[in-house]
Amino acid sequence: MTENEHIYLDHNATSPVHPEVAEEVMPFLSHGYGNPSAPYAAGREARERVQTARVQTARLLGCAPGEVAFTSGGTESNNLAIKGTFFARRDKGRKHIVTSAVEHPSVRETCAWLAGNGCEVTVVPVDHAGRVEPDNVEAALRPDTFLVSVMHANNEVGTLQPVTAIAELAHQRGITFHVDGVQAAGRIPVDVKELGCDLCSLSAHKFGGIKGTGALYVREGFQVEWVQQGGHQEGGVRAGTENVPGIVALGKAAEVALRDLNRNMAHAGELAAVFEELTSSQALTRLNGHHIERIPNTVNLCCLYADAMNVVLTLSITGLYIGTGSACASHTQEPSRVLRAMGLSEMAAYCSIRISTGPENTMEEAQRASQKLSETVEQLRLVTAPEDIGICDENCPCFFEEGKR
Amino acid sequence: MTENEHIYLDHNATSPVHPEVAEEVMPFLSHGYGNPSAPYAAGREARERVQTARVQTARLLGCAPGEVAFTSGGTESNNLAIKGTFFARRDKGRKHIVTSAVEHPSVRETCAWLAGNGCEVTVVPVDHAGRVEPDNVEAALRPDTFLVSVMHANNEVGTLQPVTAIAELAHQRGITFHVDGVQAAGRIPVDVKELGCDLCSLSAHKFGGIKGTGALYVREGFQVEWVQQGGHQEGGVRAGTENVPGIVALGKAAEVALRDLNRNMAHAGELAAVFEELTSSQALTRLNGHHIERIPNTVNLCCLYADAMNVVLTLSITGLYIGTGSACASHTQEPSRVLRAMGLSEMAAYCSIRISTGPENTMEEAQRASQKLSETVEQLRLVTAPEDIGICDENCPCFFEEGKR
Repeated sequence: MTENEHIYLDHNATSPVHPEVAEEVMPFLSHGYGNPSAPYAAGREARERVQTARVQTARLLGCAPGEVAFTSGGTESNNLAIKGTFFARRDKGRKHIVTSAVEHPSVRETCAWLAGNGCEVTVVPVDHAGRVEPDNVEAALRPDTFLVSVMHANNEVGTLQPVTAIAELAHQRGITFHVDGVQAAGRIPVDVKELGCDLCSLSAHKFGGIKGTGALYVREGFQVEWVQQGGHQEGGVRAGTENVPGIVALGKAAEVALRDLNRNMAHAGELAAVFEELTSSQALTRLNGHHIERIPNTVNLCCLYADAMNVVLTLSITGLYIGTGSACASHTQEPSRVLRAMGLSEMAAYCSIRISTGPENTMEEAQRASQKLSETVEQLRLVTAPEDIGICDENCPCFFEEGKR
Repeated sequence: MTENEHIYLDHNATSPVHPEVAEEVMPFLSHGYGNPSAPYAAGREARERVQTARVQTARLLGCAPGEVAFTSGGTESNNLAIKGTFFARRDKGRKHIVTSAVEHPSVRETCAWLAGNGCEVTVVPVDHAGRVEPDNVEAALRPDTFLVSVMHANNEVGTLQPVTAIAELAHQRGITFHVDGVQAAGRIPVDVKELGCDLCSLSAHKFGGIKGTGALYVREGFQVEWVQQGGHQEGGVRAGTENVPGIVALGKAAEVALRDLNRNMAHAGELAAVFEELTSSQALTRLNGHHIERIPNTVNLCCLYADAMNVVLTLSITGLYIGTGSACASHTQEPSRVLRAMGLSEMAAYCSIRISTGPENTMEEAQRASQKLSETVEQLRLVTAPEDIGICDENCPCFFEEGKR
């Protein structure tokens, strides 16, 4: 690849704005400047554009437009879902939340904040593939549980959770079920009615929209208390002047993602196979996460003895952008909580990288990237002393046979 | 004016994206798609753009870049300032807030929410010009007051508050002072160090930025607890992937606004004079708000016996966009709380319109708009029976002599 070209394979962090989305939004930045709350034509036009986007987003989720509330992103959606549910029900005396050990920080930290404000939180473990076992959720439920929050697809390893089964367990007991759908929406079918959830979060910039916009599905008849007070936008669920360009972009991205969903999934699967091939062709490289129950665009690899941050930075110099399995920026920080929860040793977690593709990636890009990754890992293994990154203990899944997971 | 032309005079609701801002952002939508938290070049570029915007925004506010936290808008900034201060200090036992009767809903409703969660709130009245009297603030302060929140410029009438004097009163007692600077920032000088506040909110789309982005000045050393939990973006004050295009736009809008500030203020004053002239030339038309202590772009007029919503809608048909003095959309809703707090009767409040200009409005537009407004008000007065909109009582400021305020 030439120096000016780059290959972007970190779509779980953020995705490029889809060309059709950019086209839709750009003129809107310079022309449509009404406030949707204004009574005159420019305001009405803005209102109509927001409503169109609501219909487009509702179609992606399989719900009614009135069940979609726009937010400033996935993080706000998760905050609103969890705190909004608690605040709306706190007079009922239920104070217990059940969540999983592999949730995104916006769920984990929101639960932690509520734990410091009178709630109790039970964190259900995951297996070596990062799956939550519904039986473990059931065992964690209490008479005072008011919320179960489990993600649809994990951001680091892509593992899909058995959300429909968990929804049933929750609803049998009158417990609210929230799904963090941020990494799933726009990539795999997410039908909130089939999932059976009361709340589902999504983020625009994970599937071709613009950073700074998200949505929360709120089942009709379900009440959340607003967590951002002010004007009565978004049906009173979320105050603040609507981010009209961002919302228009989210709507268009949802439309495009739904239209292209099957093709994109098949394409992602083909690209993923190229990277999964490395686990056969290269010694000491293992797949983290579930072999089958996984969003197709995500491949998390443990490349033993090659420090992941070194791999990522070395590749980035050549114009190849991938992520680390861990969310940390350096070894002074914690290793990935997700990988640790899956039973990986610290060392194995520090040696894990994440490849997450998007619809615009080509097979040729995947092949070049895989080749480059393979070379870089081999080179770094030669210069990395295992003692620099700690010793993998015997219980680490990287010692497991492939077939066991 | 021809049918396709329109004159936009509702900048306090939202302003058009400044052409220089649109130019800065548009290529960014299609090219710069890194996540600022990513370690590689595309992430670094996004980080650098966010940092540049932070420096630009800090210059507008007269503070250090590290004192600026980006948010999803003015509403979130106000929520973060007020709740973030409470949550960070609640172990100190102080639970009392002092605010004014003319605050924006995002301040009023946030205080109301805290009032339902263990706080007490004292609402200080305003005079007929909409001014808070510092003595009244002082009288409201208690040993357990932890926060005073008073806006810089009112969104409906433009009245400026004596924020520096209030800051002194608060700080003498170790009380935090928050300024809602949403309508002031980018329009008049806002130097947070001169104002002496601990916290100051702003919104990008009020001065040429894009909807969905705002900022909160947090004085160095001052601690707010995050109100949106998740990743550790914005120095831990606000979680969530940064809205990079929105932030880039805010930074550019701040740079342009600061550069053009004096010219824009003089221009706004000249345009305002055209509309204020109506109070002399037209019987029963009065200025709401302070004659001098006012942001120059805002002229709120009580046009007695002409129903404001009818005025606004009639004018909008001809392509002239102004706001109602009240935030309500129809008479089934409450009249403006701000105007009522200033002592206007219900009727006078229902007959009040708001003109808010922007830098791109021309003198010719102002003159055409003023003419059109004058004609429309006269026509509607002929068809509106005073009894349809209630009777103005004797204490209403619209009965006052001009010179008295």
